[in-house]
This record gives sequence, C-alpha cells and structure tokens, in this order.
Amino acid sequence: MESPQRSPLAHVFRGTFVHSRLDVPMEILHGRLLGVDDGGTIVFLEQADQQEQLAKKWGFKTSDIRELTHHEFFMPGLVDTHIHAPQYLFAGTRVDLPLLQWLTTYTFPTEAKYKDSDFAEEVYTRVVRRTLKNGTTTACYFATIYTDTSLLLADIVDKFGQRAFVGKVCMDINDTVPQYKETTADSVQEMERFVRELLERQQSKVALAPTVSNCTVYLVVPLMVLSVQYRDGRNSLVYSKSHISETEEELKIVENMFPAYQNYTDLYDKNKLLTSKTVMAHACHLSEEELELFNLRGAAIAHCPASNFSLRSGILNIQNVLKHSVKVGLGTDVAGGYSASMLDAIRKTVIASNTLKINKVSEAELTLKEAFRLATLGGSQALGLDDVIGNFEVGKEFDALLINTKASDSPFDLFSADTFEDYLQKFLYLGDDRNISEVYVAGKQVVPFSSSV
Amino acid sequence: MESPQRSPLAHVFRGTFVHSRLDVPMEILHGRLLGVDDGGTIVFLEQADQQEQLAKKWGFKTSDIRELTHHEFFMPGLVDTHIHAPQYLFAGTRVDLPLLQWLTTYTFPTEAKYKDSDFAEEVYTRVVRRTLKNGTTTACYFATIYTDTSLLLADIVDKFGQRAFVGKVCMDINDTVPQYKETTADSVQEMERFVRELLERQQSKVALAPTVSNCTVYLVVPLMVLSVQYRDGRNSLVYSKSHISETEEELKIVENMFPAYQNYTDLYDKNKLLTSKTVMAHACHLSEEELELFNLRGAAIAHCPASNFSLRSGILNIQNVLKHSVKVGLGTDVAGGYSASMLDAIRKTVIASNTLKINKVSEAELTLKEAFRLATLGGSQALGLDDVIGNFEVGKEFDALLINTKASDSPFDLFSADTFEDYLQKFLYLGDDRNISEVYVAGKQVVPFSSSV
Ligand SMILES: [Zn+2]
Ligand SMILES: [Zn+2]
Repeated sequence: MESPQRSPLAHVFRGTFVHSRLDVPMEILHGRLLGVDDGGTIVFLEQADQQEQLAKKWGFKTSDIRELTHHEFFMPGLVDTHIHAPQYLFAGTRVDLPLLQWLTTYTFPTEAKYKDSDFAEEVYTRVVRRTLKNGTTTACYFATIYTDTSLLLADIVDKFGQRAFVGKVCMDINDTVPQYKETTADSVQEMERFVRELLERQQSKVALAPTVSNCTVYLVVPLMVLSVQYRDGRNSLVYSKSHISETEEELKIVENMFPAYQNYTDLYDKNKLLTSKTVMAHACHLSEEELELFNLRGAAIAHCPASNFSLRSGILNIQNVLKHSVKVGLGTDVAGGYSASMLDAIRKTVIASNTLKINKVSEAELTLKEAFRLATLGGSQALGLDDVIGNFEVGKEFDALLINTKASDSPFDLFSADTFEDYLQKFLYLGDDRNISEVYVAGKQVVPFSSSV
Repeated sequence: MESPQRSPLAHVFRGTFVHSRLDVPMEILHGRLLGVDDGGTIVFLEQADQQEQLAKKWGFKTSDIRELTHHEFFMPGLVDTHIHAPQYLFAGTRVDLPLLQWLTTYTFPTEAKYKDSDFAEEVYTRVVRRTLKNGTTTACYFATIYTDTSLLLADIVDKFGQRAFVGKVCMDINDTVPQYKETTADSVQEMERFVRELLERQQSKVALAPTVSNCTVYLVVPLMVLSVQYRDGRNSLVYSKSHISETEEELKIVENMFPAYQNYTDLYDKNKLLTSKTVMAHACHLSEEELELFNLRGAAIAHCPASNFSLRSGILNIQNVLKHSVKVGLGTDVAGGYSASMLDAIRKTVIASNTLKINKVSEAELTLKEAFRLATLGGSQALGLDDVIGNFEVGKEFDALLINTKASDSPFDLFSADTFEDYLQKFLYLGDDRNISEVYVAGKQVVPFSSSV
C-alpha cells in the first residue's frame, strides 16, 4: 500500500467494516484496521495483524486505536439522492392525494412560506439534524424558488457538516398557486446568482433544479446554457436534478405541453439537461428506449419507492433499470415519502421489488444487500461522487456510520445464537437512529451533534 | 349514562381520545373525561364540562384527574391477530426464501429448539416485552408443538399482563424436518392437555392452532371435535387459528393433498374449522366464492401484509374483503413479517392497498384511518373480543396507549403550525415505541414495565 505523504492520522479504528463494491453487493470485513488522515481520507484498510507495520508507517500507538465491540460495525454513510427540504415541515402527513393535486393542495402553498427566513431556518435546521441523525451523510436537497433561503439551507448544511447538493427550484408556470412562481427573467437571473453565491461557499455543491412541468421553454433554455457554462467551469460542482415520469397523469401533461418531443426523456435530452451530471427522480414509467438514452448519456435515476407508494405514482422496475446499466441511487423524496430515513428507503426498495416479483413483472427480487449497495455506493455513483465516497476504499473520504446493534433502548433484540450477519440484517430491517451511535463526514464526527450547532 | 354500581375509580383522564367506531374509521374526541373503574372497565367518556356531575356521581376529586398535555392522546391498544412467538428469535433476518423453503430451512428447525424451557423462556419473555412496548395489548400467538413451553408462553403473557390467545401448534406431517412433528395420537392428547391446563389459568385464552398443510385428516377431525366441545363449554375462550391461501404454491399442495374438497376454504369448512371463532391468516388468493363462505360462517381474516411482502406470497385485496363484509384484523406474522410492531402493520397495510391502486386492481386505496381501525377495532372483531375491547365505548375494558408525540428523542419533528391531526398522522406514519409512554390492559398499567417482571 502506498502512502504518498505522512500527514498525522485523525482516526484508527479496529473492528468490522461492512460496505459494497462494484462486484459485491455487500462485503463484511472482520478484524480490520482502518486509518483516516487529517484531511478525512481513508489511508489504509488492512487485516488487524498488520498493526505493527501500519503503526510504524503511520506513526500511531496502540492507545490511539479505537476498538469496536463485537456488536458494532462501520458502514458507509447513506446517500439520499432526492429530498425536498422545505417539505420536511409536513413529512408524515397529507399523502392522501395523487401527485398533481398533492402539489397544488399541500406542497406549493407550503413552499411559498419559505420567503420568510426565520421560518426557513427552523425547518431547514430540523431536516438537516434529522437526516444526519438517521445516517444521511450526503443529501441532494431541493429547496424552493427563493434564492436567499435556499442559500440559507446551504449554510445550515455546512454548519452541521453534512455533504450536500442544494438546488434552488425554478418555476415560471404555476396556474394553481400563482403566488408561488417567478417571472422567467427573474428565474434565470436568480438562478445565476444562486449558483455564483453557492460556488463561493465552502462545502455545499450546487444542484440546478428545474421542475420542467412548471417551466416554460423560455426558462429551460437559459437554464441549459447556465448548466453547460458552469459544468464546463467547475465541473464537479454543478449538477442538475429534476423529476421524470413519476405518474401516468404527469406523463400526459408533459406530452401535451411539449408535443415536439418524442417522449419525456427526449425533452430533457434535447435541452441538454440529460447528461452524466443529471439525476432524475422516480422514472417509474420510462420506456426501454428512454432507459437506453439514460444509459447512453450517463444520466442517473433517484429511486424513491416510499414516495411512489404513498402518492400511488407507480413502481419502478429496478431490476430492469440495472439491466440497462443505468446509475441508480435511492431517495426518500420527503414529503411524498413520509420518512426522512434512508433505512426506510432501503426497506421500501426491497418491498417495491418484492411486489414486482409477486406480480410476475420481474423474475427475481432485489436482495437486501443490493438495496444496501444502492443506498451507499449506488447513491455516490448517481451523484458523480463515487471517486470520493460510497465505500471504504483507500483514497476515498471517510463518510461512515458507527452502528451499535446492542444500543441501549435498541428497537430489536439480539440472542446468543445470533451471528454477525443476523445483527446486520436486524439492523437493516429493524434498526433506527438509536443504533447509529456516531456519524462521520470526511473524517469529521458530526453526530452526536457538537454543542456549537 | 348508567352506572349500575359505584366501585371506586382506578383512573380519571382528561384530554384527547382517538378511536374507531363501526360507522367512523377514526374519531378524535378532544376535551373529554374518561373514567376507569377498579375492574378495568370504562365507566364514562364525557365532555370535560361534565366534570362536576361526574365527580359527584363517581366520587373523585379534581386532584384525582390525570391531565394530558396537548401533545398527548389515548388510543386503543393494538391487536395483533397473528404472531408466531418462537420465530421472534430470528425476526429481522432470513426473509430471503419463499414460504415453503423458508419454513423448512429456517422456521421448523428453529421451532424444534423450543423443547428446551430455558431457551423458550428467554425468547418468549423478549417477544412479550417487545410487543407490549410497541403497544400490542392483545396478541394471538402461535407457539410450537411442545405443550409445556407453550404453557410457559401463557405464563409469561400473564406475568406481563398482556391479553392473549396462545395456541399450541399441531403437526403430524413433516417430511423435511422430521424431528419437528408429533404422532397423531400424541398431538390429539397433548392438545387436549394444553386446552385443559390453559383453561385453568387466569388470563390467557386458548387458540387451537392446527397448521392444516402439516396435519393428516386423522388429526384434523379430532381437533375439530375438541374445538366444538370446548367452544360449546367455555365459549369465548377457545378460538381456532390457522393459515389459508398464503401462496399459490401452497394452494396447489393443499389441492393435491385434499382432492375431495372444492377449495382450501371448503377443507376447513367441511371439518368444522371455519366458524365465527376462527381467524385465518393471509387469505391472499381466496376466490369470491371462498370470501362469501367466510362471510356466511362469520370467520375472520388476519391480514399480514408485512409477511406477504417479505416472503413474496401475494397481496390481499383488503377492499374486496371488506366489500364481502368479512371480519378483518391485522397481524405482524413475525417472523415472516420482520417487525413485531403493529404500527408497521398499519403502514404496510396502507402500502399493500396502494400497490393495488397503482396496479388498477382496486379503484380506491384504504385510508390511514381505515388501517388504524383494522389494527384496533377490526382486530377485536376478528378475535371475537369486540364486546370487550377495540375502542373506548363505555362498558368495554380500558386497553389503551398513551401517546406522547413530543417524547424526548421522538423520531419525528413537530412544528408550530402543526394541527392535532398532524401530530396524529406523524405518529401513525413515523412514531415508534419512544412515543408510547404508557400501555394499559384492562385498566392496569403494564408499560413502563414494573420492576417485578
Ligand atoms: Zn421530488
Ligand atoms: Zn403465520
């Protein structure tokens, strides 16, 4: 193993590490030593019997090693590829309407309140705390059309140390809730300001977030130009994210609005919004042809089964998406999905796949291990961060959760006959934030929360 | 309101009560006074402005009233109509096989361990604690074929104060795990002993639990005789429970084993096991004809969506069952279902119904309120206990959960704009045992656990 430089180590852990690789949905590594340098990068992951050599090479003492118990393990931080921060206000309520009525009855009127920065600060602080506590180390947030409070969300994310993309929503059509829209000119100008100001900040990355069914072509085109311009400049920082093919009803509306395009995917593609830096939520009703185009462009899908169930939108055939080699991560889609926990997204991904198996739409169901990979490595791929996070490969940043399967007040029971794999499965199916005892982003411990936040 | 006698009151609560009635899926009663007498019976539920008259009539003082906060409410205890106590050992693991392989690979070998009473005591104690902590005030348990440890489960249930049916499993066929079966003669004799001994005990009620696909006709007939005999004697105490029409594969096996019967339901019916004292789990693949027979006999269904998803068995069309006026409760079906929490059963019931709506199998989805009713009043009807529990009607026993939506470490956030209905929905969709601060069975507080158990 190489070590180009000997910056002091921030952490050395000994114990069990569970993560995914491209060729293995889940790998359980017992008795390992993992070192994290001052910059938050994983510098070694080796068998514990290499301790002497590693200690010599990296200059740590036995007393520097944090020893995990047999009931603990590290797993990669969870990546939420699609979440609406302002909707956290009503997460867990009001999923009694189909998508389009849900948007106009609950969502747009709620999002209109985020002009007020005190209001925004409260909800945004709570959603960042809640998702971090539940192990979301990276989140791809939608905010609202309001630039200032969208920037405030980025500030809060930075303060708590979460890794995130933050997107200002662009919307110059809104017939049902007219107070919640921008003029086309304002939208373009504000998006430009948003991108510029966000790029000056420390940590958060920008997500362009046009909601195409609520954008005129006069808005889509300048956004495209902006997107291309910033992508070519500070490449990894600008990402575009939106929704696609969520419900059949929405599909028809888009077809009527944009008759010149072959299909929903073509609309984004022709406007240069379907690129290797695009992540589209839902995609329940994409045709084979559209999936091929996703693959060709390297565009990703954010699979949000919780939301698709709640709003009765559709069920993505995840096996088919993977067969087309399209990048996929999981998203909570709060508040269409009522839970802000990615553990819930993992469980609902398994259920969604199981329903397709029951209905004989797919031949095999996705395993729990594969859902685990989608929530970690898959999410990092979908967000173009797989060279930085997603698993415990040396050279990546240490975004990790310390799981304690025997936490006090744990929501599940362990028995003496249980194997480690039983602990792990019980956590993935039944565990919650009580089992997530520490959360790290880029080597920095962010949960339990420090007293300064 | 009548009060035939003036036994001293055990509790007087003032605050909000949420429950179901036959004609209303969910009723929210604010500003009410509820009194429970020494025997655990609800003696009044009135507007709080009736305090003076009530105090006079029932002889309580203002200082006797327990005042709920605005973030608290009472709801009826949850009724789990189908749970396998021994399988709690591996709940949250090993749902990677379809039903029949799952039974022979994991379940039967596990259940065979319950010959050992120390082993049984540990797991049975944990499952009773865990379900009570999650608000299950009434559970319909399957145990194993072993009479002594099945009686031990009843003892543990009594010690913790849970209301339960306990069933000894009867099984005289088991080709794949031959150590886990009885002879036909033993099975009949042991079942008789089980029923006799259980009827002598205090609280637990007997459930006859033949697993028909693992019973010869030589066993089914004596069970039927036994069931009829005890039913006619101490009527409300003996209930028969089993599984029906869980997977298509199982359906075919039963057809092959019992070719003389028209269908699966007919098999039970002709053997007098389909009565108004029967609750059958799953029923995913019942025909219209079979549902009509259920209705005719007054037999009930335990809907176990969590298990049906996990083992990919099928999806019960709950709307259709309700249309046929068949009694339905919800079950966790641990460990085919991985969660022992009835809140999970409520959520999965909504999801199951939503998938049918997505797939256009049903026209409308079940509401959250209707799922709430199934988990409380519906369960009481399915178990023939609706004259005793299920809601807060005067004259019923007080089986109740005190819900605190603002508990410390609550898994969801409340905001100042939230209405009471928002608190309630957030609890039902996102809450857990942290929000269930007290549990009552027949007026006796059983959670937090007393130091004696
Ligand atoms: Zn969304
Ligand atoms: Zn069962």
